[in-house]
Amino acid sequence: MIYVVILAGGKGTRFWPISRETWPKQMINILGEESLLRQSIKRLDGFLPKDRIWIVTTEKLSQDIRFHLRGLGKGMDQIGFILEPCGRNTAPAIGLAAITLNKISPDAIMIVMPSDHAILDTKAFQEKLRLGIRVAEQGYLVTFGIKPNRPETAYGYIRSGLTLENSPEEVFHVERFLEKPDLRTAETFIASGNYYWNSGIFIWKVSHIMKEIENHLPWLYRGLKKISELKDSKVFDEIYSSFENISIDYGVIEKSQNLLVIPSDFGWSDLGNWAALDDILERDKRGNILQGNIIDINSENSTVIASHRLIATIGLKNMVVVDTPDATLVSSKEKIHGIREVVETLNRSGREEHLIHQTVEKPWGSYTVLEKGDRYKIKRVVLHPKAKLSLQIHHHRSEHWVVISGTARVVRGEEVFEVHPNESTFIPISMKHRLENPGLIPLQIIEVQNGDYVKEDDIERLDDDYQRIKKE
Amino acid sequence: MIYVVILAGGKGTRFWPISRETWPKQMINILGEESLLRQSIKRLDGFLPKDRIWIVTTEKLSQDIRFHLRGLGKGMDQIGFILEPCGRNTAPAIGLAAITLNKISPDAIMIVMPSDHAILDTKAFQEKLRLGIRVAEQGYLVTFGIKPNRPETAYGYIRSGLTLENSPEEVFHVERFLEKPDLRTAETFIASGNYYWNSGIFIWKVSHIMKEIENHLPWLYRGLKKISELKDSKVFDEIYSSFENISIDYGVIEKSQNLLVIPSDFGWSDLGNWAALDDILERDKRGNILQGNIIDINSENSTVIASHRLIATIGLKNMVVVDTPDATLVSSKEKIHGIREVVETLNRSGREEHLIHQTVEKPWGSYTVLEKGDRYKIKRVVLHPKAKLSLQIHHHRSEHWVVISGTARVVRGEEVFEVHPNESTFIPISMKHRLENPGLIPLQIIEVQNGDYVKEDDIERLDDDYQRIKKE
Repeated sequence: MIYVVILAGGKGTRFWPISRETWPKQMINILGEESLLRQSIKRLDGFLPKDRIWIVTTEKLSQDIRFHLRGLGKGMDQIGFILEPCGRNTAPAIGLAAITLNKISPDAIMIVMPSDHAILDTKAFQEKLRLGIRVAEQGYLVTFGIKPNRPETAYGYIRSGLTLENSPEEVFHVERFLEKPDLRTAETFIASGNYYWNSGIFIWKVSHIMKEIENHLPWLYRGLKKISELKDSKVFDEIYSSFENISIDYGVIEKSQNLLVIPSDFGWSDLGNWAALDDILERDKRGNILQGNIIDINSENSTVIASHRLIATIGLKNMVVVDTPDATLVSSKEKIHGIREVVETLNRSGREEHLIHQTVEKPWGSYTVLEKGDRYKIKRVVLHPKAKLSLQIHHHRSEHWVVISGTARVVRGEEVFEVHPNESTFIPISMKHRLENPGLIPLQIIEVQNGDYVKEDDIERLDDDYQRIKKE
Repeated sequence: MIYVVILAGGKGTRFWPISRETWPKQMINILGEESLLRQSIKRLDGFLPKDRIWIVTTEKLSQDIRFHLRGLGKGMDQIGFILEPCGRNTAPAIGLAAITLNKISPDAIMIVMPSDHAILDTKAFQEKLRLGIRVAEQGYLVTFGIKPNRPETAYGYIRSGLTLENSPEEVFHVERFLEKPDLRTAETFIASGNYYWNSGIFIWKVSHIMKEIENHLPWLYRGLKKISELKDSKVFDEIYSSFENISIDYGVIEKSQNLLVIPSDFGWSDLGNWAALDDILERDKRGNILQGNIIDINSENSTVIASHRLIATIGLKNMVVVDTPDATLVSSKEKIHGIREVVETLNRSGREEHLIHQTVEKPWGSYTVLEKGDRYKIKRVVLHPKAKLSLQIHHHRSEHWVVISGTARVVRGEEVFEVHPNESTFIPISMKHRLENPGLIPLQIIEVQNGDYVKEDDIERLDDDYQRIKKE
């Protein structure tokens, strides 16, 4: 039996402001028309059935990810979810997946892959996975190594040693494993020709990785054992939260004596930050990547990602500009790692620009805050056909709804009626109400909220299609 | 008699995106809390009464400028307006002012000044004007020269010659006058020590400048003579529009034999573009000017002007970033003149970002377009206390009004009623209506427009407090 474990719990800070904590990098369309996570799943089409795929993510993200995956094709509801009470980096996440699969079969092959990398050549990727499975079955931890083209200091490096005997294709024993070297060291690695970037994709037997965790991270092993014997989810939360934040690379791979590396060339990039798009996307004659509503005058080697608003750029060199409705990033490519400081500053100041977008995706559609002011808030709300919001009450605000397109079915107190484009209705404070789209096209309304308190948490849900009623 | 003529017809392209054609540079608060035009008028307080001030501007801008000047203090309604049918640069504009003043008194002294420059030292400025008046009365064209501190190639240079005899203070005859030299020439000017920047401020007798125009721009003189004898405004428009676009510097000053220069040090900058703020505004330790909602990480010598939206800047060097709700500029300081190309591109593409702001100032208040979509538009409308919109009809849209704050008096067909915060009303297509603020605090409403056509020109005004009813 073969299983794929996709790690999808990351916050994707380095792709701020498009990536936000509640809608992180793996869920956004950085490359092409699908999110990185959806691409990661599609990349397995024809390789193995959906019920062999497990997604590890945080409880917080899991509902949005489930809805995010809808429409990807048949069998999506067969994908398993392994939920972390909180993010604790890849060693605990992979450990949690391992004990889950261990219950199914300790002999199962476990393929681990990130959800937010780029892999352009699916055919080559699947072929390398097949090779990896064959050698993992012989009792190795298998890594996939990317031939480096520059002395990148943000990656882990793998030094290949002897060739694996009896392998029809190139597979090497790993001699050395080194996370994030300094520039001079990275340069000597490139010069030597025997080093590969660690792609973060791994294959091993479930029983094998369990044993390696036991050897190298015994505290984690003990915690996982306890978790696997638990019934009570509160204790699970406590144990998991107490785990050290540590990556599988630092915690296990670097220390293992049992590693193989398969040199791979499937158009990989870890998309570490905005500057990494240069490796993957086509650039114009001047070396620019320009997407969206842009007027550029003579910029060079710059990446500008705009949305609706006009971005005018003049004479930029090696810059990144990324615009969203509520936050704009302007950075030199060289200093792009400063995004971390920006996000920390936002966090410290109790702001929201690193957490949520102005347009918030919901299972039933989305809403966009057009303006917030003293005692009022204006939203555009879009409901998918046949979707409905929860039956709800607000205790501090009334709402005016003006229908822009589609047809609204409104529950207001004991009344039920329909509202058409160019008509409106009014929901007084404390009146129970529900908005529904009974039609076949999206319903768009403008909602004007008035009240002493117009924040999202003023909501009491009486009935919900999406199981969001909190039970104490 | 002494008159001041303030030139206020410019488009201020170089301060885009904050400056827009309908609300240009002279009307915005680039320095401090008053617009440059309002500062230009205040700078004359105590120097001469308001009824000696004339503003030359285009017909298009004049109504907005009149309203823009309200609240500046007593006597504002005594400021005269001289209206150009269209912009034709400073030679025709000054000529038009000269023939206007010539009818009052050919012997009058005429002080000409731009409306969009910075002058930080009002006392020194007024003293230099008094000196200028004294020597202009002796029959000279008087210019004010600024000691240059760098080889700027965008300015005009004045080479001083012999000292004017019998003058108690430093006044020189002008030996040479040169517009916009190349860099090498500018450097030799600085080295020689006898060159001054042309501040664009002039003093002369009305009869004297008329004579100089007659000598150096005879076609303009003939046109102005015709205009001064006219009654019919249509012919005026035709003649004025036919004038060549030429500055007073190129057309008259450079050729005149009768020039004086008064060396001046009153904290002047022509605020030629965003990079010029460096000369005038205080910079932080790293040489940055940071205004508004900004998180900056390690930028240097950069100017960032933000508004509500967050602008995060990382590692910028010698950059300018200016954000507005519908357009953001990101430019190297060195290449900032490329703004001209941006504005030309907008113009060619039939776009609006160079013409109007998302918030449009009106005599009665303002409106902000929060969102435009297919068949709808959402606006926040703010009415000053006691203000009212015109009695009007829209033939292609209906309007929902939700009151956010203040009290609205609504005329709807034959009804008149009041709408309070948290209440709404609906104006069907083709129904005559009027919105008024009868109260003492601003009235804010959210207007949701629905219809096949939701542009501003679908308006038929039946009655208007602001004389905006078009007569054919």
